[in-house]
Parts: sequence; structure tokens; C-alpha cells
Amino acid sequence: MDDMKAFRKLGSITPGHPESHDTPGVEVTTGPLGQGIANAVGLAVAQAHSAAVFNRPGYNLFDNYTYCIFGDGCAMEGVASEAASAAGHLKLGNLICLYDDNHVSIDGDIKCAFTEDVCARFESYGWHVQHVKDGNHDLEGIEAAIRKAKEVTDKPSMIKITTTIGFGSLLQGTGGVHGNPLKADDTKQLKQAFGFNPEETFVVPQEVYDLYHRRSAEGAAKEQEWNDLFAKYAQEYPKEHADLKRRLSGELPEGWEKCLPVYSPSDPAIASRKLSEAVIEKIYDVIPEFVCGSADLTGSNNTRWKKAVDFQPPCLGIGEWSGRYFRYGVREHGMAAMMNGMAAYGTMLPAAGTFLNFVSYAAGAVRLSALSGVRVIYIATHDSIGLGEDGPTHQPIETLAHFRALPNLMVWRPADGNETSAAYYSALTAKSTPSILALTRQNLPQLEGSTIQKALKGGYVAVEAENANITIVSTGSEVGICIDAAKFLKEKHNIVARIVSMPCFEVFDTQDKEYRLSVIPDGIPSLSVEVMSTLGWERYSHEQFGLNRFGASGPYKDVYAVRFNPCWSSFHPSPCTNNFL
Amino acid sequence: MDDMKAFRKLGSITPGHPESHDTPGVEVTTGPLGQGIANAVGLAVAQAHSAAVFNRPGYNLFDNYTYCIFGDGCAMEGVASEAASAAGHLKLGNLICLYDDNHVSIDGDIKCAFTEDVCARFESYGWHVQHVKDGNHDLEGIEAAIRKAKEVTDKPSMIKITTTIGFGSLLQGTGGVHGNPLKADDTKQLKQAFGFNPEETFVVPQEVYDLYHRRSAEGAAKEQEWNDLFAKYAQEYPKEHADLKRRLSGELPEGWEKCLPVYSPSDPAIASRKLSEAVIEKIYDVIPEFVCGSADLTGSNNTRWKKAVDFQPPCLGIGEWSGRYFRYGVREHGMAAMMNGMAAYGTMLPAAGTFLNFVSYAAGAVRLSALSGVRVIYIATHDSIGLGEDGPTHQPIETLAHFRALPNLMVWRPADGNETSAAYYSALTAKSTPSILALTRQNLPQLEGSTIQKALKGGYVAVEAENANITIVSTGSEVGICIDAAKFLKEKHNIVARIVSMPCFEVFDTQDKEYRLSVIPDGIPSLSVEVMSTLGWERYSHEQFGLNRFGASGPYKDVYAVRFNPCWSSFHPSPCTNNFL
Repeated sequence: MDDMKAFRKLGSITPGHPESHDTPGVEVTTGPLGQGIANAVGLAVAQAHSAAVFNRPGYNLFDNYTYCIFGDGCAMEGVASEAASAAGHLKLGNLICLYDDNHVSIDGDIKCAFTEDVCARFESYGWHVQHVKDGNHDLEGIEAAIRKAKEVTDKPSMIKITTTIGFGSLLQGTGGVHGNPLKADDTKQLKQAFGFNPEETFVVPQEVYDLYHRRSAEGAAKEQEWNDLFAKYAQEYPKEHADLKRRLSGELPEGWEKCLPVYSPSDPAIASRKLSEAVIEKIYDVIPEFVCGSADLTGSNNTRWKKAVDFQPPCLGIGEWSGRYFRYGVREHGMAAMMNGMAAYGTMLPAAGTFLNFVSYAAGAVRLSALSGVRVIYIATHDSIGLGEDGPTHQPIETLAHFRALPNLMVWRPADGNETSAAYYSALTAKSTPSILALTRQNLPQLEGSTIQKALKGGYVAVEAENANITIVSTGSEVGICIDAAKFLKEKHNIVARIVSMPCFEVFDTQDKEYRLSVIPDGIPSLSVEVMSTLGWERYSHEQFGLNRFGASGPYKDVYAVRFNPCWSSFHPSPCTNNFL
Repeated sequence: MDDMKAFRKLGSITPGHPESHDTPGVEVTTGPLGQGIANAVGLAVAQAHSAAVFNRPGYNLFDNYTYCIFGDGCAMEGVASEAASAAGHLKLGNLICLYDDNHVSIDGDIKCAFTEDVCARFESYGWHVQHVKDGNHDLEGIEAAIRKAKEVTDKPSMIKITTTIGFGSLLQGTGGVHGNPLKADDTKQLKQAFGFNPEETFVVPQEVYDLYHRRSAEGAAKEQEWNDLFAKYAQEYPKEHADLKRRLSGELPEGWEKCLPVYSPSDPAIASRKLSEAVIEKIYDVIPEFVCGSADLTGSNNTRWKKAVDFQPPCLGIGEWSGRYFRYGVREHGMAAMMNGMAAYGTMLPAAGTFLNFVSYAAGAVRLSALSGVRVIYIATHDSIGLGEDGPTHQPIETLAHFRALPNLMVWRPADGNETSAAYYSALTAKSTPSILALTRQNLPQLEGSTIQKALKGGYVAVEAENANITIVSTGSEVGICIDAAKFLKEKHNIVARIVSMPCFEVFDTQDKEYRLSVIPDGIPSLSVEVMSTLGWERYSHEQFGLNRFGASGPYKDVYAVRFNPCWSSFHPSPCTNNFL
């Protein structure tokens, strides 16, 4: 009851919107509209997958339904449309969504903005649809509809339940009861009408307590039943039992990291999206919970291992529920929100690809990956103007600054093979932090000074030099360019440059100050080089070489030559005059 | 022909995706999937609105249809769903969309991801839907369908045209012909099959030139006809003629800026979302092309002036085509993409509101506002943890860094009434730059040192002090807090602080260095204070006071007290040791 009284108060477990990181029993963090139903699709995916992988005759370990309640606002959001379309394709019979059709959103009656036929839309996605016309009174009708929905096993179910918002309040049927507390007289008449004592507040009748206590006992019994089953499972299927237990703990299989590819400078230049593919080709076999996919860019993102089986309803003949590769379609936002649900389920470690620029389409869900602390990996290829011909509509400029500014998210931009392995190591072992891996389309040389261990510091000295005149800090595809530039500076101008590779700001910032100062020492002017917005680079450098304008369509070397220029206009005040440039 | 040969080459007008800023005749920049159809909805809105405002008996100045071709990828994107649902609600009979139903996306046959009934979905939105079954051959069927679509004036039309991708190529019907050039032998057989000389390249038959020349002459005649009509219109409707001519030039009515509210320190503390409302309440009357709206947060965004009429199909009885207030529904991404289309049409200056945190849902379209250089204004209220109870799912942390890093976009975060007026002045007069106005939910005092003119520099000294020990740079709701802090520092610690207000990084960065150094002088330690991610603030400060973690649900003063702390961990290398803190 104290939790109820602390509603929307700081530190309570009853915040303004459901938050899985704050409140036990809340599965996913869903305040932003449309995320909930998309998370639910992900949870239902995880159930279907887990059942296929772990259930055995007599051992129905995974058999839950996923229930979701959504409203008109959710139904209007594109992310909900994307996920609902995907769920229909995937024939997720274990998903039951209740649509609270109350005709009201914050702007008032939805007739001003939302007059589509939601039932027909969900039918067009391939859902089973029912309608309970009097959701205010017809509890039996709702129950019957849910029972029927359970019987439909080859389609997700949507039950439209027509209701009155704030039913019983003097303001019922209006937006006035969406978020505002009721006035005292209204509360009074409402309590009276429903048979409560209007003078009492924060009272729950004993019979309700009794009901909940009974339910609680029932739940405990069910849990015991499951635990007993699981103990028997351990006897009969020790390997599967150990695998599942480990997955639920969030730990990876012992020694998995030995499979990570290691490179030496004599290895050929390879695009980091291909280096990423090489990692995936190794880890899929040793990390069975690792699942991957793409928003319709599989061949470009290099996200699919050769032996991958697609996650598909078996009846389509193009995959299995146990399949670990996801064809998300061109639905970046839905994909990200589904992955949040899949990760929350506990048995899957989801990764998926799109172009870095289009991770922005999924920004709403990426934010919730970070806030709710789920281990989700965004494989973001074609990470700069280096993608070339597709042009500025596809070339990210602001994207790294955007995601570097998001708390509890790691943005990795590896410069070569070892750094790519490090990025995966970091992303896969971060139990409660999502990661974005920014990867190139174009080939990158294997660097002289890189190792997985060094890269895991987030930033390190790739090329050290005594009596250096300058430290050059860079990431990804620009590190190799900077190493070449250092040679040029030495030969042509007798300028001695140290080269720092900084694949991950977030990880570097957690190192102790001594280490950080050993990488970017005081007293040496520092220049950053990254083919992106320079915003944020002032943290590590006095001057910035970057791209504070949009790119262009053309062969990538031409685009680099014309667009990638020093941004000397950057302004940085210093207590002493900075004369080095 | 040279342009054709320069396809996807740097500097050509034939880039990898259509870009309105590069190629004459391209109306909108639409490479990212789903944006095109949403832009088309905006263009159709602008036609309906312009017709209602300017057409007179005998003067059908605005009577165009908007045509859009979209594919399976577009149809999967949430932004397309949002805009299509809005178009159905708005009964945009002037919009005709051709759906290229070719069954193939980049991952191959769409049966792996996209098996919904697209026709039924568009019907559920309220569209008129037709199907041309053999789009490879049945050109008459396509023409007949378009004619029929034109006859349907109370619904947008979608014509599904079933086609074979790469029709005639050896790779027809596969993803192999999406983006890759055909092989030489394939090109040869293709040309042969269609009756071309397979040995010739870059050849257009004379009869095609002739056809296009005829069309060109027809077009010129139509244009002359329209110009003659418009000249006659000038005689009969001189006021409307002048208004339209002015709108198309992008100039605002002379003297409009006199309506901007001016404040003095004795004026009461007001939330900047209310200050924004006060501006809107003035400008709607003097800038007739200014239209506004909200993604279902009208009462919270304070975006609607008292006498506003909604833009709605008149038959609904809740608005008019000439209405200037838009009920976008909970469709942030669709809203932004529609505004891009509306702005591109040339007769409207669109602004619309949502919470700052949910501008991120629209990131894909905001990016295209900036890239294509359209004047669109995002009214982004509830701009920080200051929104309080709604909690961290609604409290932006990374959002300002994200959009500050986006080229050709102004992010304004005004601290009081004069700065709010300045932000509107800047946004309304920036002919080819979009703006985001970040506004508070909570009240802000009117500052001692602020004027519209000073704020228009992007950053200025709000409180000057001689022999200052420190410069404190801040924005929005934190500037008033810093001014109080300066008094406290002086009284309690004899520390003299100068206070700088920095409402817009982008504008401040365009000032000359002398001015910038007068605002943030060398030799004085500088501290930034903003209740957001500190990323990017290193540009103006040596140490940062910010919020590199998520917020919380609670009364806003409690959230500020607990979450808003110095981020001393920020690391900034300096050639000389920075001892001031």
C-alpha cells in the first residue's frame, strides 16, 4: 500500500510509466507509445524459440502466452504497425493483444485523427481478430474471447474491447481522465457507485486481498511444479538443462572467447562488416543463445552465418521455430523493439543489422534498450560517407554523437580485425548494456599496434612515439589513414605524431585517469580525426578534423577527398592560449 | 545524356537516391524507405490547403494531383503506415499512390518477411484500392486505374501494380537486379528482346526524344496558361495574389517581427512552452502560411492558438481544408515527414509539437528536413527531467547532442521570454534550415540580461562581471539557476561568476571569433551547466555539470535535486594543467 501511496514519487517502484529496471514483475519498459506491443511480439518470439529449443516430450518448459494491452495511441505508432505486421507473418499463435478501444487520446475524441478500421488492419496483417462490444460490463465476453484466442494457434490474436475511458467518473469518455487525478467529489460519487465507502482512501477490501492471496498461492504452486519438472529435466536432459540454466544466468559458455579471430598486420585488408561476419561465423556455434538478423540488408550487413536456419513458422517451409536467423523486413524500429522483448525473456542474446544511418529510425527502441539495460547488439554497417554511391541520405554524420550521448549504451567503431573481436567481446559480455557496432563497407588494413586486449580499454596507443609533437586520436576507418598520415608528417615535415585508436568512448571513460592520461597526455596538442560530426570530440582533442556537413553520392574515395576536411572553425576556450595550430 | 553517364558520380545531378537539393525537378529527398509516401501525403495536404485558401471561381490555381510510387520496402516502414493512416483519415482524394508489387526486397522474396495483405491494409485506412495484375504489359490497365483514381475525390487512391523486378533481365524476379549493374551479356539480350541495338550504349531513340520534346512543349504551354491565369488573378484578387507570390518567395510579411512578445525581468515566471504559445498567438495572424499542429499533445505542447480552425475534410464537420491546425495523431515520424512535403510545396510554413524526447521517433525525417533544407519547426516541449512525473522514458538526455550534431539544423533552447521570441525569429526566417525549439514544462523567470537581439547571436553574456573567477555557460531552464548560483557563490565564497546563456550552438558557432571570445574569454575557467548529456559541451567549457545518466519519475524539483550533478569524471586534455577545480 505504501508503494501505491508513492505513485510517481522519486525512488518508488510505482513510477509514471512501467519500468522493468525499477519494478519487480514488470517485464519490459514501455512508457513510450507503441513499444509495448512490439516488445510483446519479441517476448512471443522468444517463447516460440525457447519451446522449440528446450521443450521435450513430457517437458513443456516453455508454454506461456504473451498478453499485451494497447490503446489507440499505441495503434497509431509506426513501430506498433511494423511489429504487428511481423507478428502476423510469423504466425505467433501464443500472442494475445487486447486493444482498449476507448475512442479517446490526449487531443480528445480520436475522430479528429484516427478513423481507420483497426480490426481490418490487424486482419490484413494475418491476425485473428475479435470484438467485445461492451468492455465496461461484459467480463464474460472478454474471458470467452481470450479462451477463443488461445485456441487459435496459427495466428496472433487481437481482441478489440470497446470501453469508456474513466468509466464511472463524471469525466468518463473524455481526455480529462487520461492522466489527471479525479476531483474529490468525482472520486466520491465513483466510489459510491461501485459500492465502496466514499470516505475511505487507500483501502482494498478483504475479499480482494483474499483473492490475491489465493492467486499468489496458486502461482507459488505452479512455480514449484515447474521447478520439479525442471529438476527431472536435469536428469533426463542434463546438457539442455545446463544450457538453459546458464542462459538464464546471463553468463556465456566457458572459454567461448577463444573462438574470437585474432589478426596480425600481414593479414589482408578487410571491411569491418566482413570482420564482423567472421566473428559471427565463429560465435554462433559456441554461443547457442546468440541469434541474429537484419532489417532486409542481410547481404550488406553480413549478419548471416553460412549454416544459419531462419526463424520462421515451420508451415512456410522456409525455416523453423528453432531457427536463429531473423528476417525482420524493412522494419528497423520494430526490429529493435522486438529485440528488447527477446532479450528480456532471458533465453536469447539478440543481435541484428541495418545501416548505421537507419539505426536512427529505431532511436525510440534503442533508448529503451539502454534504459532497461538489456543485452542487445546493433550491427550497424556502412558507417560513414565510406558507403559511397548511396549518397547523403544513407551516410551518417550525427549518429555516433547521438548514441555516444545516450547513457548505458556502448558505441564501438573498430579499426581492424582485433578491434572488431574486442567490440564483440565487450558487447557479448555486457549483461545489462546494449551496444552499437559501427562497421565499414570499405576495406581496412590490419593495424600494427592493435590487440584485442588493448582495444578492450576503449582507447589505446596504436603507434607510440618519443618526443611527439602531436597526438592524433581516431576511430574505425580513419585510424589507418592517420597512421599513414603520421608517416607522411615525419618524412615531409619532421613532425612526430602519436596515434591513438579510440574504438569506444564509453569504455575509455571508465578507465582510471592515469591510464587515460597515458593515452592522451597533457602537454601534447591533440587532434581528433573521424569522418563524422566533431561534436563531442572536444573531450579528447584540441582541434577536430571531421565532417560537420552532409556527404555526397559518389565513389567513396572521391567523397572522402572532397568532403572530409579539417573543421578549424571549432571553438575551444583554454585558460592558456593554444598556439599549436 | 552526360547526366546519365555521371550516375552516382560525385557532383552529378544523378546521385544514388533522389535529392531535391541536387536535382532540379525532384520535389523531395526520399532515399530512406517510407519517407516518399509520407512526403507525398504532405504534398497532397498542401495542395488541398492551398486550393482552399487561394482558389476562386474561375481561378483553379491549385488543382494538381500528387503521385507517388512506393515499393514493398516502403510499405514495411512504420513512417509509411503512419502517413497512410493519416491520409485516409484526411480523405485526400488528390493523392494517387502506385504500389510496385514486385515481391522482392533486398533479402530476396518477400515471403520471408512480408506476407500481409497490403490492399486490405490500405482499405482499412480508408483508401480507395485497385489492383493491376500484369504491370509488366498492361499499360492500358494502369492508365485506366489512374483515371478511376482521379474520379474518386473523397479518398486517397492506392493502385497495386503487380510487376516483375528487372523485367526482361536474366535475373528478373530476383534481388540481384535491385542495385547491381546487369552483366554485359544480360544487357545485350535485354536490349535485343526490347528491340534495341545491343551494340549501342547510352542511346535514346529519336521517337522518344520527339515524345519528350512534345511533352516539354505541352508543359510550357500549360505553364504559360497558368501564368496568364495568375496575372488575371492579380487584377481581381490583388491581396491574395500578393500573399501567394510572397509565400512562394519564402519571405515573411514586412514588419511581422514587431508582433514578437518582449519581456522585462519584472514579468512573471512562465514555462517556455507557454511563452511559445504566446508567440504563436501573435504570429498566426500576421504570417498566414504558418500552420501548426501536434502529435496528439496539443494541450501539453501549447501549440494551438485560440481561434485556430483544424485542417480536416469539411464533411467531418470538425474543420476545413483551409484550417491551419493539424491533428497528426500519435504519429511523430509521419508528422515530420508530412511536414517536409508541406514545406516543399512552397505555400506553407509548418510547425508542430511533441515532447522533445519523442522527436527522436521522427529522427529519420528530421534528418531529411535538414538535408533537403526545408523550413520546418519542431516545437519540442517537456525538454528535460523537468517534466518530472512521466519519468525517464519521457526525459531526454541524449537528444540535444543528437540534433546539435546534425548539419543544417538549429537547436534552440531558450531561457526566457525574450529568448523564446528570438528562437522563433530565427526559425521563421531561416528559409532553408529546419529548427527544433526545446521548451520547458516548468516555469522560468524572465532574465535580467536578456534581449531578443542578444539571443539572436546564439550565445551572449547574460550577467557580466569584472575580474571574474569563472564563466558559467548554460541554456534554457538552467540559466536562471546559474544566475542564482552566481549570487550564492559571491555571497558565500567570494567567487565572481560571469553567466553566459547559449540558446543555440549552431548560431553561436557562426559568430566571428572576436565575439565568441568576448562571450567565453580565454584565461577564465569555464563551466557548462545543462541538465542533459555533457557530450559536446567540452567545446565551450573546461568542466561540465550535466546528466550522463537517465532521469527518474517524481516531482521535478526532487528529480533535479537527486539526478543533476557535476560530471567531474569528464576528461579533457589540456596543454597546460587545468587547476581551477
